[in-house]
Amino acid sequence: MPLTPDGSEVILGLDGGTTSTVCICMAMPYFNEVPDPLPVLARAVAGCSNHNSVGETAARETLEKVMAEALFKSGSNRSAVQAVCLAVSGVNHPTDEQRILNWLRDIFPSHVKLYVQNDAVAALASGTMGKLHGCVLIAGTGTIAYGFTEDGRQARAAGAGPVLGDWGSGYGIAAQALTAVVKAHDGRGPQTMLTSSIIQKLGLSSPDEVIGWTYADPSWARIAALVPVVVSCAEAGDEVANRILQDSVQELAASVKAVVQRLGLSSEDGRDSFPLVMVGGVLEANKGWDIGKEVINCISKDFPGARPIRPKVEPAVGAAMLAWNFLLKETKGNVKS
Amino acid sequence: MPLTPDGSEVILGLDGGTTSTVCICMAMPYFNEVPDPLPVLARAVAGCSNHNSVGETAARETLEKVMAEALFKSGSNRSAVQAVCLAVSGVNHPTDEQRILNWLRDIFPSHVKLYVQNDAVAALASGTMGKLHGCVLIAGTGTIAYGFTEDGRQARAAGAGPVLGDWGSGYGIAAQALTAVVKAHDGRGPQTMLTSSIIQKLGLSSPDEVIGWTYADPSWARIAALVPVVVSCAEAGDEVANRILQDSVQELAASVKAVVQRLGLSSEDGRDSFPLVMVGGVLEANKGWDIGKEVINCISKDFPGARPIRPKVEPAVGAAMLAWNFLLKETKGNVKS
Repeated sequence: MPLTPDGSEVILGLDGGTTSTVCICMAMPYFNEVPDPLPVLARAVAGCSNHNSVGETAARETLEKVMAEALFKSGSNRSAVQAVCLAVSGVNHPTDEQRILNWLRDIFPSHVKLYVQNDAVAALASGTMGKLHGCVLIAGTGTIAYGFTEDGRQARAAGAGPVLGDWGSGYGIAAQALTAVVKAHDGRGPQTMLTSSIIQKLGLSSPDEVIGWTYADPSWARIAALVPVVVSCAEAGDEVANRILQDSVQELAASVKAVVQRLGLSSEDGRDSFPLVMVGGVLEANKGWDIGKEVINCISKDFPGARPIRPKVEPAVGAAMLAWNFLLKETKGNVKS
Repeated sequence: MPLTPDGSEVILGLDGGTTSTVCICMAMPYFNEVPDPLPVLARAVAGCSNHNSVGETAARETLEKVMAEALFKSGSNRSAVQAVCLAVSGVNHPTDEQRILNWLRDIFPSHVKLYVQNDAVAALASGTMGKLHGCVLIAGTGTIAYGFTEDGRQARAAGAGPVLGDWGSGYGIAAQALTAVVKAHDGRGPQTMLTSSIIQKLGLSSPDEVIGWTYADPSWARIAALVPVVVSCAEAGDEVANRILQDSVQELAASVKAVVQRLGLSSEDGRDSFPLVMVGGVLEANKGWDIGKEVINCISKDFPGARPIRPKVEPAVGAAMLAWNFLLKETKGNVKS
């Protein structure tokens, strides 16, 4: 089936994170090039669709609801859908992918093309306008580096969560800051401005109460929300806070370097150009202490060819562009054969 | 009331951990000295009595059951009890202590003396035969250092759990080993023997599966159970495993040094003698790599007066000796006044 859109066909791109799910409905582009502006028709938002977090039934209901809403808002309907790309956190194994594909298959007619990806892949696509080439670094509550070569090989580093050394993440930075408060209090570490700043931020009356606060709620995002306090203390010259941010820069850069090296994304002297997409709250510019900029500086020392990109569109749009690209590739393949 | 036991009076010592609760029933000693052998009449074991873990009702039921069993086994009964010391993990604030005292008060007649302590205090007493002086280092699944001066001042270090930097604990050592496996796999770290050893131990087929295994169950003890694998790899010469154990030695020694310094347990040149009680699976002697011995060596460099003690009795016996000592002190106080 060659691509001959009649103007009614649409594509859905979904970004399913641990806090919310975003669905973008995009008109099928007429030509085989990325249109500018992108033909985004509608956007819908729902709750968490990570099955690890809310269970399969709830995750599936959320996905159905958010897609129905995006179609309704765009004045379209299910029969106009040509392709769907669902980019979701927690997809690490082919078995995860297959289970989610099975859900989607129940919802859509058999001619609809369905794609399931790790959410890092949509984040990469959001920076490269749908092209799967280069490396993406995500650093929000968690962190992961994910890369693709032009011939389709892929690799990841980090993304292993707080127990397994994701120290460059927002959670990692904040946990180290809380640890520094405990160590300053019990005599194992130097005094730091973090103590008064964090205690004030959390509404506690003494460093003793930090332990109770930490374990009262297992949410990773609640801990990661302390990152701006760490940045403020570092900007004010606190040595302990500075050391924590410098370490996080090293960790984040190491994830990218590992991916670039394993995939051979650049030449040996590091001068070959490759896209480096930077996504997430930790990498957004701050007044004085810019973690994202420092990470880029650190990577550029080994790989001067790294071409940093801060995406102008959200990951759900990246997912929609991926769906379109996959569809184009499959159609071309069919025409050739 | 002077102490004039008629031979029927007993003392209860309880050690309430996160996996089990041990109750010791000891005959009240005739003289004001520690008898050898200790007059332990009976020992009973029950499940977890940590209210943070199982809730207040279940914790209280477990405590009542294990005390009743110890009394029954010793051929005694509740009316013979003179004093009870309950040493329980998770007692960090006076409010924790008061709540548990209130439970105990409901169970026993008003003349029975009741004491509630952090479990580290009973561990110290198990090494010093009931005397609260010196420093105890516990390193099992978790770790804490706790110290007392002879005039009753106390201080602690670490004991803040896995999120807040207890890297010397069994959990900390094992989490670092799992992290090393992930880093070797994704290219951020050097290859290590830990990969094949841990994968074999856990029955996994590839390092990819380590992430899923880690988050499948939040139990800290399940992770800490990997410590012997790390020790074996270090003994076989693996550099990564050796580095992890060396770091844990530094962390554990730093906890003790912080307590000793804050309390002034030794003189400035570190030559004044003080008891250093060592408790927990991580500190038990291994064939080649003896973490406990290395920790002592490290502490002795700064404090040659440290007098290491590996307790011959369990913490519940320490709790019983504490109960007796507290009782003696209160009685003497009453006699004087």
